[in-house]
Amino acid sequence: MSESLFSQSTGMFIAETHTDAVTWFFSVDKFLVEGKTKYQQYQIVDMPTFGKTLFLDYKIQSSLLDEYVYHESMVQPAMTLHPHPKKVLVCGGGEGATLWQALQHNTVEHVDMVDLDEELIDMVKVHMKEWHHDCFDDPRATLVHQDARKWVEDHKGANYDVILSDLPGPIEGGPALYLYTEEYFRHISEALSEDGVFVLQSGACNETYPYLFAAVHKTLESLGDSFAYVRGYYGLVTTFQMPWGFIIASKKHDPLELDVQAIAQRLQERGVKNRYYTPRFHHAMFTLPEYMHKAIEEHGRVLTDDKPFLWTA
Amino acid sequence: MSESLFSQSTGMFIAETHTDAVTWFFSVDKFLVEGKTKYQQYQIVDMPTFGKTLFLDYKIQSSLLDEYVYHESMVQPAMTLHPHPKKVLVCGGGEGATLWQALQHNTVEHVDMVDLDEELIDMVKVHMKEWHHDCFDDPRATLVHQDARKWVEDHKGANYDVILSDLPGPIEGGPALYLYTEEYFRHISEALSEDGVFVLQSGACNETYPYLFAAVHKTLESLGDSFAYVRGYYGLVTTFQMPWGFIIASKKHDPLELDVQAIAQRLQERGVKNRYYTPRFHHAMFTLPEYMHKAIEEHGRVLTDDKPFLWTA
Amino acid sequence: MSESLFSQSTGMFIAETHTDAVTWFFSVDKFLVEGKTKYQQYQIVDMPTFGKTLFLDYKIQSSLLDEYVYHESMVQPAMTLHPHPKKVLVCGGGEGATLWQALQHNTVEHVDMVDLDEELIDMVKVHMKEWHHDCFDDPRATLVHQDARKWVEDHKGANYDVILSDLPGPIEGGPALYLYTEEYFRHISEALSEDGVFVLQSGACNETYPYLFAAVHKTLESLGDSFAYVRGYYGLVTTFQMPWGFIIASKKHDPLELDVQAIAQRLQERGVKNRYYTPRFHHAMFTLPEYMHKAIEEHGRVLTDDKPFLWTA
Amino acid sequence: MSESLFSQSTGMFIAETHTDAVTWFFSVDKFLVEGKTKYQQYQIVDMPTFGKTLFLDYKIQSSLLDEYVYHESMVQPAMTLHPHPKKVLVCGGGEGATLWQALQHNTVEHVDMVDLDEELIDMVKVHMKEWHHDCFDDPRATLVHQDARKWVEDHKGANYDVILSDLPGPIEGGPALYLYTEEYFRHISEALSEDGVFVLQSGACNETYPYLFAAVHKTLESLGDSFAYVRGYYGLVTTFQMPWGFIIASKKHDPLELDVQAIAQRLQERGVKNRYYTPRFHHAMFTLPEYMHKAIEEHGRVLTDDKPFLWTA
Repeated sequence: MSESLFSQSTGMFIAETHTDAVTWFFSVDKFLVEGKTKYQQYQIVDMPTFGKTLFLDYKIQSSLLDEYVYHESMVQPAMTLHPHPKKVLVCGGGEGATLWQALQHNTVEHVDMVDLDEELIDMVKVHMKEWHHDCFDDPRATLVHQDARKWVEDHKGANYDVILSDLPGPIEGGPALYLYTEEYFRHISEALSEDGVFVLQSGACNETYPYLFAAVHKTLESLGDSFAYVRGYYGLVTTFQMPWGFIIASKKHDPLELDVQAIAQRLQERGVKNRYYTPRFHHAMFTLPEYMHKAIEEHGRVLTDDKPFLWTA
Repeated sequence: MSESLFSQSTGMFIAETHTDAVTWFFSVDKFLVEGKTKYQQYQIVDMPTFGKTLFLDYKIQSSLLDEYVYHESMVQPAMTLHPHPKKVLVCGGGEGATLWQALQHNTVEHVDMVDLDEELIDMVKVHMKEWHHDCFDDPRATLVHQDARKWVEDHKGANYDVILSDLPGPIEGGPALYLYTEEYFRHISEALSEDGVFVLQSGACNETYPYLFAAVHKTLESLGDSFAYVRGYYGLVTTFQMPWGFIIASKKHDPLELDVQAIAQRLQERGVKNRYYTPRFHHAMFTLPEYMHKAIEEHGRVLTDDKPFLWTA
Repeated sequence: MSESLFSQSTGMFIAETHTDAVTWFFSVDKFLVEGKTKYQQYQIVDMPTFGKTLFLDYKIQSSLLDEYVYHESMVQPAMTLHPHPKKVLVCGGGEGATLWQALQHNTVEHVDMVDLDEELIDMVKVHMKEWHHDCFDDPRATLVHQDARKWVEDHKGANYDVILSDLPGPIEGGPALYLYTEEYFRHISEALSEDGVFVLQSGACNETYPYLFAAVHKTLESLGDSFAYVRGYYGLVTTFQMPWGFIIASKKHDPLELDVQAIAQRLQERGVKNRYYTPRFHHAMFTLPEYMHKAIEEHGRVLTDDKPFLWTA
Repeated sequence: MSESLFSQSTGMFIAETHTDAVTWFFSVDKFLVEGKTKYQQYQIVDMPTFGKTLFLDYKIQSSLLDEYVYHESMVQPAMTLHPHPKKVLVCGGGEGATLWQALQHNTVEHVDMVDLDEELIDMVKVHMKEWHHDCFDDPRATLVHQDARKWVEDHKGANYDVILSDLPGPIEGGPALYLYTEEYFRHISEALSEDGVFVLQSGACNETYPYLFAAVHKTLESLGDSFAYVRGYYGLVTTFQMPWGFIIASKKHDPLELDVQAIAQRLQERGVKNRYYTPRFHHAMFTLPEYMHKAIEEHGRVLTDDKPFLWTA
């Protein structure tokens, strides 16, 4: 034993390299839980400023500082857009916060949550209550561990009012590569009710990496017979260090036509108390910066099972 | 000479620690220019994705990827808000891009730019033409190297239509500590015309560090006799890895009352072609997220020469 | 939940800044045990290449790759130098490996180990058996949790044959500041037998930070009436990324006079099987590079309770 | 322009990942010269503690702190071993310090230096005088830019007394892969005089990466008909953060038989003033730690043009 003299304690870090421009070294006060499931490695850590934070495969996922920003952005616009959401499907959403957000709407009678990684969710149930508030026990919720694509294909005509896709990005060889293609989105359409609303997280909404957002937007636009409206929006997720993009594809209801009063009324009637998605903020979220419109035009393309998303677009 | 075996090239970096949560290691392809003025150290580097980038004291300032986002956010809302800006003052703004943005309005007859650091601007003139487009040579522009506070105090009654404050944050011992106080803002008011508009960059607009924004907002609000309207807004600056905040304090014109058509008409008449601040985007920029409103209430306080801003708020 | 697209897993690290020249980011595969005692924070981690590794206050201490190099260097030269070591004192040595090394000599009848940090050793007993091999249970060993200086002062005339000082460096405000002074070394002398041998770990033995070694060497040299021989040596500790220095102060036996045959015979008779400190290697270890001799002359000075060691020498 | 509030200057770094255990972030005060030759990228920087330092492809090569340790270790044992070195060949050695060290022996009549990278040496001539002391202008020196292997093959019977191989490690696809094979070492033997001495830098001499050293040692041992003595040794290079290995293959003179007096006499007669390789230090350098002997046995193998060195040994 011998402390190295003239050394300074610098600390513990998890590092993540984002594009080739920057590597983030996140400071860790304490490693709370660590493990490895069949699909991924996870760490739950205490971070200064961010508080309790989840990493998957050493990439930051969600922190107590503002998980509500991500999860309200993920769920509330689509749920609020539908005039009476009764039946909901959550694809992915392992922290349980997406499910919890959906269940806040008292119109909801049933939510199916389909997430592949059972071990992760078992861990989440114990260690991430601040995210899911034990809502897995809600009698309206059913949790299934299965591939989301298979579930959706098997549930044509299921008449979901809202489908919330909170999945990892489509990485080559990863489990979500074919959950961002035209074919899959057609299956989604067939599982939705006739005025159903689909929303999916769609990656970074900044100038460094707008490529996934652009491609998904173009792909959904190409399905004009299924979805009358395709509307991108974003949430300001401090933990991600960038605005984060989402896209709504809707059969009948247009988010841009929803006015502040209607949003306020629906949230109130349904007993929903948001901290980020408030009525006055709705239209700002749906106003994409020019660079995203430009990215859609320049980098967007229709993703198919034959030609799925590649990082290099 | 002996290359270390079993080593991998990792590269060159400039590192910046932001709050206690994260340190950014920015990848550098090449160091283009380095030096030290009386006030600060600077590096101009080539970065992957970001392109040419300026660092001051090892903190990222501005990159070619999106300097237009920062500088249009800094300048265009205030300039557009004023119905006929003729006389403008720029405080700080060393890259020259703030000056350039102001000069885009063909109504402008004169701009005074006051920046303390002559050596830095001499360097900028040579190495950062993509930012300033040689506008220092514009016959409408006058460049003065002086403390901004002194200039403003000496120019009561100067009748500036717009004052643009693009200064470093108020760091203890730094040159800008007293350029964010009630007393200074009163001097600003006296240097403005009777319908003058003041805008200043006001720091991070995220949940990690909303403290400066909150304090400046409260301070300007307290000057109701000088400024009828105080309106915060933000720009999505990818290079900064967070939304960046600005605050307009206006004697007579309210940014929230400016409609899309008026903005479009003014920009067109004045020959201004923006890439980020477009008419349709104006209102989204001025819609602050709830967490900023909350921060203003919880952390805001009136800054004075006696009690200026401290990092710990 | 949303994996950041176009991010690469980089991993977990503990970082330690050594002088102002370099920061080491040690890769961590897994955090095995973490905690905090009254005196320090500890992590036991799995590292690639190094294997199980102990960090104290985020500074690397010892790894399975070569803890034997450090601990044999710490213990074996002094033990072997003494012709018949029966009674031994270990100061510090929390991992238990210093104790274990001493007990390898079958001449030993009793070892007192004095280490302040009881919580740390309780943890070590459970998690670092590869270091101590449960030797705390050896009937010849007594473990005491007390300040080493007080113990030594209270044991004048105790007639220890060998005293092994495996303590942290003398950091201002740290627990070991006064365990590297002339006054303390006099107490050591009084607790030793008349042909006793004292050895202490003495910090880096490289050109970046030879200051502690130089000062301790000068201090022991100044005690010519107590110690006839003061001899520095070093071990090649890969885990520390530098040669590590030790100094023997001996009343009667000179390490430089010990020949290869005598060493071989003693080790064999006493049943000691070393992997690093072998007979043929003894003299190489005691041959300090010129830069250390130069450092002793240029930077050495007598450390006293009034003027203990300071990092800046 | 806007300094990021609540950010701390952290600084500039060059990072190098050594094995999978540790990444070194070297602090840079100033980038002095940067560029790219046909073969490699280079940076000369000012570092705290290390002073002026050369990096090639972002790997640390040599610093003013202790380039003398590396270059004396590289050159002086072999030069001193030969009783009257007149004709010398330097392979590689781009900084010019290897050449300079050889020329210190006043017995030397001629040195050929063969280094592939002309652009690098042109740069070195201007910016690294502290290494080469303008010795390229010594009338006894000839500089050739050519592949070392070809030169050696073309100079059978050239009767070099000493050949100094100061080349990069044998990286796949790199220029030096076939400069560490049995076939090449045979050519070396044929270019040497009948009592010639060959020495080459042979990589890390620590427990993390002893593989190159082990393989080169075995390869030279296998050439018993060419070289009567193969002797490994090491230098303590603080800049490399590890002991660095070298191997002498000698036709007639055995380094282990050279006594301290002979070394002292030769150095004095030849006018050589060393700072690291001193007579008393010679035998310590040639005493390898057990782990290196073990690595030679366990990991050594004969390298051939068909099966050259691979990092994974």
